[in-house]
Formats: sequence, C-alpha cells, structure tokens
Amino acid sequence: MADRGRSTLITGIGELTTNDDELGRMRDAAVVVEGDAIAWVGGAADAPAADERVDVGGRAVLPGWVDSHTHLVFAGDRTAEFEARMAGQAYAAGGIAQTVAATRAASDTALAANLDRLADEALRGGTTALETKTGYGLTIADELRSARIAAGRADAVTFLGAHLVPPGWADDGADADAYVDLVAGDMLAAVAPHVDAVDVFCERGAFDEPQSRRVLEAARARGLALRVHGNQLGPGPGVRLAVELGALSVDHVAFLDDEEVALLAESWHGGRGTVATVLPACDLSTRMPLAPARRLLDAGAVVAIATNCNPGTSYTTSMAFCVATAVLQMGLSIEEAVRAATLGGAVALDRDAPRIAADGRALLPLGRIRPGARADLQVLDAPSITHLAYRPGVPLVHAVWRAGSPVVGARPIP
Amino acid sequence: MADRGRSTLITGIGELTTNDDELGRMRDAAVVVEGDAIAWVGGAADAPAADERVDVGGRAVLPGWVDSHTHLVFAGDRTAEFEARMAGQAYAAGGIAQTVAATRAASDTALAANLDRLADEALRGGTTALETKTGYGLTIADELRSARIAAGRADAVTFLGAHLVPPGWADDGADADAYVDLVAGDMLAAVAPHVDAVDVFCERGAFDEPQSRRVLEAARARGLALRVHGNQLGPGPGVRLAVELGALSVDHVAFLDDEEVALLAESWHGGRGTVATVLPACDLSTRMPLAPARRLLDAGAVVAIATNCNPGTSYTTSMAFCVATAVLQMGLSIEEAVRAATLGGAVALDRDAPRIAADGRALLPLGRIRPGARADLQVLDAPSITHLAYRPGVPLVHAVWRAGSPVVGARPIP
Repeated sequence: MADRGRSTLITGIGELTTNDDELGRMRDAAVVVEGDAIAWVGGAADAPAADERVDVGGRAVLPGWVDSHTHLVFAGDRTAEFEARMAGQAYAAGGIAQTVAATRAASDTALAANLDRLADEALRGGTTALETKTGYGLTIADELRSARIAAGRADAVTFLGAHLVPPGWADDGADADAYVDLVAGDMLAAVAPHVDAVDVFCERGAFDEPQSRRVLEAARARGLALRVHGNQLGPGPGVRLAVELGALSVDHVAFLDDEEVALLAESWHGGRGTVATVLPACDLSTRMPLAPARRLLDAGAVVAIATNCNPGTSYTTSMAFCVATAVLQMGLSIEEAVRAATLGGAVALDRDAPRIAADGRALLPLGRIRPGARADLQVLDAPSITHLAYRPGVPLVHAVWRAGSPVVGARPIP
Repeated sequence: MADRGRSTLITGIGELTTNDDELGRMRDAAVVVEGDAIAWVGGAADAPAADERVDVGGRAVLPGWVDSHTHLVFAGDRTAEFEARMAGQAYAAGGIAQTVAATRAASDTALAANLDRLADEALRGGTTALETKTGYGLTIADELRSARIAAGRADAVTFLGAHLVPPGWADDGADADAYVDLVAGDMLAAVAPHVDAVDVFCERGAFDEPQSRRVLEAARARGLALRVHGNQLGPGPGVRLAVELGALSVDHVAFLDDEEVALLAESWHGGRGTVATVLPACDLSTRMPLAPARRLLDAGAVVAIATNCNPGTSYTTSMAFCVATAVLQMGLSIEEAVRAATLGGAVALDRDAPRIAADGRALLPLGRIRPGARADLQVLDAPSITHLAYRPGVPLVHAVWRAGSPVVGARPIP
C-alpha cells in the first residue's frame, strides 16, 4: 500500500459492519487506517502493527453515515410553521418562501456558520459524508453564493434553483415558465461550475413534469448528475422522469404505485440505476405516510436513507433517528437500514467507487469499510448495530473518524 | 425562605416552562436554586442576587423528565428477541423469563452497576426522577434484593412480583394461583418495607383479573400505592381494575374503549384519580398501535409519558424520544407532551406535592419549576421546547440540575 501518512490500528472491534460483500459482518475484527484511507481489514488476531493503536473495547464499528439529502444553506427557522402543522395544518411547499427571504437577508458569514453548526452536529452524530443543496436563494446571485458556501463544507453540492417559484414571480403558468427559463438558462450556467448535481422539486405546488424535464435536460446537457424530489405529497411524475433521465436518485418517494416500484428496481438491470431515497424524519415531521422502503427492497430497488435536514419539513441531522424509524416502523432489518444509510447514500452520491473530482483530486469511495475506502468510521456504545433500533433515542456514538481523522471520542492508547 | 445552602441564579432563560398554572410559560426568565430546592422564579429583570450565577444564553429551560415507569433491575439483554420481532415475530410476555434467569444469576454488584449505568444515561438525557420496578427476581430472595438495590438508586420503587408466573411454576391455572398466593402473601410481606407501590402485569399470558385483584388488594391492605400494567396487548380488565381500586396509574393503555377512557377521566372528579401512563417507545418496539393519548387528553384524563425502559420491549432511557413520538405521531402538542413527561410523571408517582417518606425524610415535589419544588431542571440547546419534536433524534440536553446539583454541563460564571 502507498505511504499515505500515519497509521492507526483500531482493535477490540466486537462487531464490524463492512458493507463489503466478501468481508461481510465480522466479529473480533481490527482495522488499520493510514492517512485518510482504510489500509487493512481483518481478524484481530492477524492485525499488522501500526504507528498507534486504539482499542474500542468490544464495541460495534460501522461506516459513518452518508447523508445524501440535506438543505443546509439557509437562515432562520420555521418553528411556528412546525407548531401549526402539529396542530393539524397540512404541509404545503409554500413555507419554503419564508426561508428564502431569511436566507437572502443573511450574510455569507451567517450562512456559513449555520451550515458549520449543523455539519458539526451531524458529525458528532456519526455522519461523515454529507450532500447539501442550494435552493433558498432563487436568484442567480443568491444561488451562486449558496453553492460557493456549500462547496468545501459538504462532500457533494446540488443545485436546486427549481425548489419553488420564488416570491416576485407570480405563481401562474406563464411566470413559472419564465422562472424555469432562468433556472435552466443563466442560473444553471452561473452555478454549474460549483456543483455536482442538479435537483428539481417535481410536485404539485412546485414544478410540473415539463418544467422539471426542462431543468434536468439542461443540466444533463452540461454533464451534471441529476436528482429529483418526487412523489412526496401525492402520486406524481417524479419517479418516472428520474428513471427516464437516468437520475442518480429520486428522493421522498412516499407515494408509489407498483409500476413505479418496478421501474426503480429495473433501472439497475445491466448498469447503474436510480436510487430511491427515503426520508423518514420528513415523513414524520409532515405527518405523511412513511415511504414504502420495504416494498422497494423486496422489488430489488436500491434504497438510501437520508435526513432531508432543512428548517421546514425535517429539522434533524440524526441519521440514527432515521435508521431506528426505518426498522421500527418501515419494516427494514437493522442490516438493511444501516446499509441504506451508509452505502445506499454513497451510491446515491455516485461515491461508492473511486472518482476524480472536477479539479483533478482523487476522491476515495464512501460507505464501506474495506481497503482503499475513505476512513469514515463510527464506533457505537453498544455491542452490535441492532442497538441503533433496540435503543431508540439513546445517543450511541462513542467515536468517529472522518477521512482518517479522529473527530469524536477516539483516543489512542499511550 | 429557609437557609437551604448555596444559591445559584440561573439567568438568560429564553423560555421557561414551569408547569405552574400561575407562572405558565415565561420569556426572559430567571430561577434561583438554593440547596436542593427552587427558591425563586421570575422575570430576569427582577432577579435577586445569589452566591453564583449561570447564564444559559437564551436557551429553553424546563423541568427534568420524570420517568415514572422503568424496569432497571435486570441483567443480560434481549437483542435476539428484538431482532426476531423486527423480522415479524409477535411480542408475547414470555421473553421476560429469559431476563429472570439472567437476573437471578447476576451478582448484586452487577445488578447495581447496570442500574447505575442506565440511570446515569437517563440523567445525561435530562431525566432527573426515576421510578423503577422489581419483577425479574420472582422469588422472595430475588425480589427482596431487587427492591434493596433499587432503593436509594431510584426516586420510587415498585414491587412487581406479579410480572410473570416464573419458570418452575407450570403456567396452568392451579400453579399460577399458587404463585399468586406467594406474591400476595410472603413475598409481599418481605418486600413491602422497601417499596413505595405494588404493580401487576394484568394481561393475557400474565395475570388475569382475579389474580391481579388479589395482589393489589393485599398491597392496599398494607397501605401501599397501586399500579397496573393494563390493556397493552389487547382489550383487558386492567384499566377498570386500576380505577376501581384507586391505583396511582395504569400503564400501557394501548387498547381502550370509550368507556375506559371516560372512566380514567372521571377518576379525577372530586379528588386524586388514576393516571393513564403511555409508553410510546414500547409501542414502537413491539410494533403495536400507539396508545390513544390524544383521546385521553380530550376526555380530560391525566396522562403521563414514560420510557418503560427494560431489555425486552423498550430498551431506551430517552424521554426526549418518547416526547418527540408523542408530538409527531400521537397528536399531542409539545406543551402537552412535555407536561405529560414531567408533571404527568410526578402525579403518577404521587410526588407532585410535598410528601413525607416512610423514614421521615421530607420529599420535595417534582415536575414543576416553582418555589419549593425540587430543583430538577434541564436546559436545551434550543430556544424553545418545540425543538424537542421539531428536531427529533438530535441530543438537545445542554445542562441538567438534579436536586440543585449541576450534573451535566452547568458551569457557573467565574
């Protein structure tokens, strides 16, 4: 292996979840981290020497969470809207406009500090890779600065100019189309160099199928990856459009007919398909049905679990909460839920294999603990991943390494 | 006010939830803690001097959680049973026998250490008062040592000899009755001096109505308070029996007809009634329907929220998880859920007013922040209690005081 820097042997691993088909779920395992990468994985008895050693005392170790759907470039909060919803008011997409106003009024420094606060909270909760989106700017200048603030603070940045027809553009057909022209034209041109993917909120109250298609096709023409917010508030065209255009993921997917479930599964036949990203905390926070993750897995679809952290519909960074909900209420086994919240997210970000960034940097793969992967690990205060659902609400993160750096709790043995 | 010891002024309280009808929910408030009690509550501008001062920086302050239903005297865990249930196996009470075997085999030291570990975890999560039960011993000697281990480690101890007909007593009618004779007779006589209340698992698979009544009447004859595990797995006689005998609480209450809801509400007409204690984490962990807390509140019943922390059906200490679930999925407002998880628990423990313990000690009231109450407070990393549901899964505890002692995060200003 190449000399990548100081090495650490992590030993005393009671249970190791690797997400690697050959390594599987191991007992009494050890891992060597070298620089920012995993250098070695095996049985504790066979562990090689390293510069330093950390004993995790029989605890469970798994990949850090890959949160593939968040909206962290924002200002303000929407406590009052949340309270109204809990008092019985139905969710509608319009609340986004309130965050748009607060975000536009905030300084770059304030937006960056808010993102850092939430990314840090997520990291302490075990999230070692994070996608985040623009979408609360909705002018060329505000979307551009949102993308710039997100770049360097997130592992993937998505342009969501098509989040809502913003205030000032009357929400009738003609003016919405004019806004879509802007998003798919000058706004996309300005923001494209700073983002990895383009997303569209394809839903009643936001953008219809032709409008969504226009934005996505313009993005595809620029070589950007695609995502779709689809089938969140009712049946809709989002899933079909996402699969047709080869989007990396379609997110929310609460309302799916059997044909859409089959389409998502079939998208993986013979190549890379479209990940179905479920957002359980959002479903609960909007009092909507939980997405049919069980049906999706049974059909053979690839599922990711993400937080959708945003101040309107899902103001949580807790992947552990989403995983517990997936097991307790969505019929997933703990192995399925953990896989969806780690490797599933990595696939949704197209980061499950080595990549080269636009600036030429080599990007290590995410979501697995195996040699060559980015050294993103979490250690639980528990003997097995089952405790993530068996002990809901209990903060179980004991230690976290991100890209080989101990960021929470990991202390070498002197 | 009496000289009770060193005083601390807690200031910078952005929102104060007092659970006091006159004080209500205050903004820009301050609290003075003196010794183990609250000495003063009012507007920040009017705050008196104190020996030291802590500024909580605009955060929300509320009473510590009162967890009025836990089973913390046990050994072992039941990960495999939990996994089987998540794979579709229905819950039945029989799994308790596994914990009974592990508990009998454990040393006093091991049982105490396990209880301390969970009580400490609960405290770090904001729980400042805790009830716990025996019920994994089920012999005179093992129930007695369970009660002794719990005493001094919990604010209230409940004898649950009638948890299950233990292994060795064949579970047919005659032998079950013989076990009930033991519980209501010699076992109760031995354990009674060490406990505050007596509880019965009145459910198909555990104890029927006549058996439950026998234990509860024997306990009442000794002047002990009563509790009932009732209506958990299906309709049953538990609620009616609890109300008829004037039990402090009936817990689980997932299956209630309108008459039972009305009975629970009416029990409060003209005096102290029976609290309906809901256990949301247990409902989710057994994949049962969530208890109808909304219906109970609408009818005028007094509701408590508790964790039911135990290794079988609800292995969590997180009252915050239960509160978030109550808001997101059971239709409670955040004020209702917080009140049920603090003052509701205090009422269920008969600790909402000053009491004198059996050994003559004065016990300060729990569940409210007002002069004379025990100084049990939690500070959230959030501007309002709404964030407990708005940000599910995010650990929000910033600081905790229990009986006036800062136990988590609370640092005086030098």
